[in-house]
Amino acid sequence: MVKWNFKPSKHLMECHDMLGVRGILQDIKAQLDPNGKTPIPIGHGDPAAFQCFRIPPEAEAALHQTIASGKFNTYSSPEGLLQARRAVSNHLSQGLPYDLSVDDIYLTCGSAQAIDIAISVLASKGANILLPRPSYPQYEALLAYYSIEHRFYDLVPERGWEINVDQLHAIADKNTIAMIIINPNNPCGSVYTSEHLLMVAQTAKHLGFLIIADEVYGDIVFNDAKFFPMRNFASTVPVITIGSISKKYAVPGWRVGWLVTCDPHGVLKASQVTGAIRKLVNFVTDPATIIQAAIPAIIENTPDQFHMQMLQYFSEAADILYDSIQNISFLHCPSKPRGAMFSMIKIDFSGFLDLQDDVEFALKLAKEESVVVLPGTPLAMKNWIRVTFGVPPKLLKEALERMEAFCRRHYRSL
Amino acid sequence: MVKWNFKPSKHLMECHDMLGVRGILQDIKAQLDPNGKTPIPIGHGDPAAFQCFRIPPEAEAALHQTIASGKFNTYSSPEGLLQARRAVSNHLSQGLPYDLSVDDIYLTCGSAQAIDIAISVLASKGANILLPRPSYPQYEALLAYYSIEHRFYDLVPERGWEINVDQLHAIADKNTIAMIIINPNNPCGSVYTSEHLLMVAQTAKHLGFLIIADEVYGDIVFNDAKFFPMRNFASTVPVITIGSISKKYAVPGWRVGWLVTCDPHGVLKASQVTGAIRKLVNFVTDPATIIQAAIPAIIENTPDQFHMQMLQYFSEAADILYDSIQNISFLHCPSKPRGAMFSMIKIDFSGFLDLQDDVEFALKLAKEESVVVLPGTPLAMKNWIRVTFGVPPKLLKEALERMEAFCRRHYRSL
Repeated sequence: MVKWNFKPSKHLMECHDMLGVRGILQDIKAQLDPNGKTPIPIGHGDPAAFQCFRIPPEAEAALHQTIASGKFNTYSSPEGLLQARRAVSNHLSQGLPYDLSVDDIYLTCGSAQAIDIAISVLASKGANILLPRPSYPQYEALLAYYSIEHRFYDLVPERGWEINVDQLHAIADKNTIAMIIINPNNPCGSVYTSEHLLMVAQTAKHLGFLIIADEVYGDIVFNDAKFFPMRNFASTVPVITIGSISKKYAVPGWRVGWLVTCDPHGVLKASQVTGAIRKLVNFVTDPATIIQAAIPAIIENTPDQFHMQMLQYFSEAADILYDSIQNISFLHCPSKPRGAMFSMIKIDFSGFLDLQDDVEFALKLAKEESVVVLPGTPLAMKNWIRVTFGVPPKLLKEALERMEAFCRRHYRSL
Repeated sequence: MVKWNFKPSKHLMECHDMLGVRGILQDIKAQLDPNGKTPIPIGHGDPAAFQCFRIPPEAEAALHQTIASGKFNTYSSPEGLLQARRAVSNHLSQGLPYDLSVDDIYLTCGSAQAIDIAISVLASKGANILLPRPSYPQYEALLAYYSIEHRFYDLVPERGWEINVDQLHAIADKNTIAMIIINPNNPCGSVYTSEHLLMVAQTAKHLGFLIIADEVYGDIVFNDAKFFPMRNFASTVPVITIGSISKKYAVPGWRVGWLVTCDPHGVLKASQVTGAIRKLVNFVTDPATIIQAAIPAIIENTPDQFHMQMLQYFSEAADILYDSIQNISFLHCPSKPRGAMFSMIKIDFSGFLDLQDDVEFALKLAKEESVVVLPGTPLAMKNWIRVTFGVPPKLLKEALERMEAFCRRHYRSL
């Protein structure tokens, strides 16, 4: 018997919260009855799975062309192709009180890698970062992995899921290095006003931390909402913006995102955070060069009509979701979604006979009705569930009908 | 003046060896004279930059088709698309004494991410990993980043760059968890015999560590060399194989690689290393789904003629390199390359008037002759340089002529 010296990383194995949304959904999907109804996946947001959200031919053509040119089979530069960074910097500079430079843009393998880079360059012993609750498990996993403490601030359902700004003062201390803001918000479907963001920026400045603005759902707003990027307030507080083409163009499988240093006063530069980012991108992997090369044409050539159609569908589906939930007893949706592609639904388990909590609700719903939703527990929201409306409205309607039938079957007799 | 709480990761900033080959080459390229000769890049290996190495139309067509299908714009699964993993597992099972399963295959963003995953799942306090010298800076950087000690074992130029197996006994201890083997070897251009690999496998078993087999240049052998994968000996010692389509198909910009657990006796599984890999891939980014989807057709449809032509060019260029260096005084190439796309060249600085070391040699060569080579210092081989022959043979010839002229200009008068 050989005595082997190796073992898995203790640190990695101890990170309980590691499992991303994908892992949790795998457990739920494992409940699906192969002889049951056609599964409806409203647990994760991936409109790209549906033909009606398919990226338009103009944008696909851009990618065909970069392949056909034969010029982009090579390695990229560590920060990403210049022409692609320029397109992103121009795109994100629109309406800003200052200009972003190409040097502020780092192209990444989707926003997942951008988030990873942002957190790993800031990781310091004893540091903590503020996370929104409802949370997004990827953040908790990453912070655990980099041994950074996370502290939750609450999004307040009664105030349209606004940030509880008073609470920031209570939980932050001199070791609070950053705050993550997700806007438009996954999982709440909320969109922050400019005034609210300014208040948060001023609070961050007062307390001495930077803001990591996860704006992966940027521009995905409807029902009269307007999207204000956090970088509008980068003169008040340094902002690291995270974004991607995944949501707006419905191509998460193309894996191109970006990390942007919004730093008009050079605070990130002076503190060497920028230098640390440059150092790190030199040895982590890059997004596919052929796809990077298509970015300028994707941004330029995608007709507005594509986005408008997508928002129209989302808006319609959000209405269906909100209205249907109002009609299901013991389920509660605090406000009509106005952005992103998710909504949180509260479940009052006192009304149910044989369902104890959100996880059981999700597991049984998958088993009995082939509807996949995400339990709230991994989002730090026990007894809530997350549902996406980033699916064809008709399909969502059917999912909600099945959910209603499911609830009826499990109600405590009244 | 605001007092900001954040600072860059001390750990990251202290990793001196972080800068990858790309970063070092940037410094060398900065020396290029814009009014000088046309630059010839033989410092890094990226044949994809040259038309004669362009991936054939059949393989490009595979990618056009996955885009046109509209089916692969979605997220992948954490391990990668099943059909792509199946194609890789079939491909890598050829000639093995056991079969790989699709569950052994994890698709990654190039081999860079595969290496990152392999090292991070093994990271333990006090552990050390054996690295070849000449080294590849990415490995040192990653080990430093994960706080793993590295210990060099030497590749012996006089023995065709074989591994110094005796030395393994001397430097390994009970904290040695793994050994990295690069075969075919970058930067030496050497290819190991089956007997040599078996001896290494037996030594690893005896000493209790696993083998990480970086076979990114797998199948890129010529001059009568034959490639034997390390996984042939996975019954003796657990092997983690790293590979990609980057080199064999000349598409590093497509960023698809793989990590493969070669574990016929279930040692990696029993020790939970496999579980750790599964845990980690759940939250790191994935290669582009549209490119993953093209993998089966790329492997299946690329005509052998493409690879044979590439090997023919490499073989021709390797001959040119070896023969030319023999004719340049004070430069020495210990053996004719037989694999990968690199060779190490030793420089005897006693013959030079105003060149002190490899870094100065590379900087001045770039400045005066617009030829970019990689200094040996970052490969832990002071007074050597690394040159690629993965360029059109004619171009390499010109680079070597320029290098000879450069040397002549700098020789100490004899």
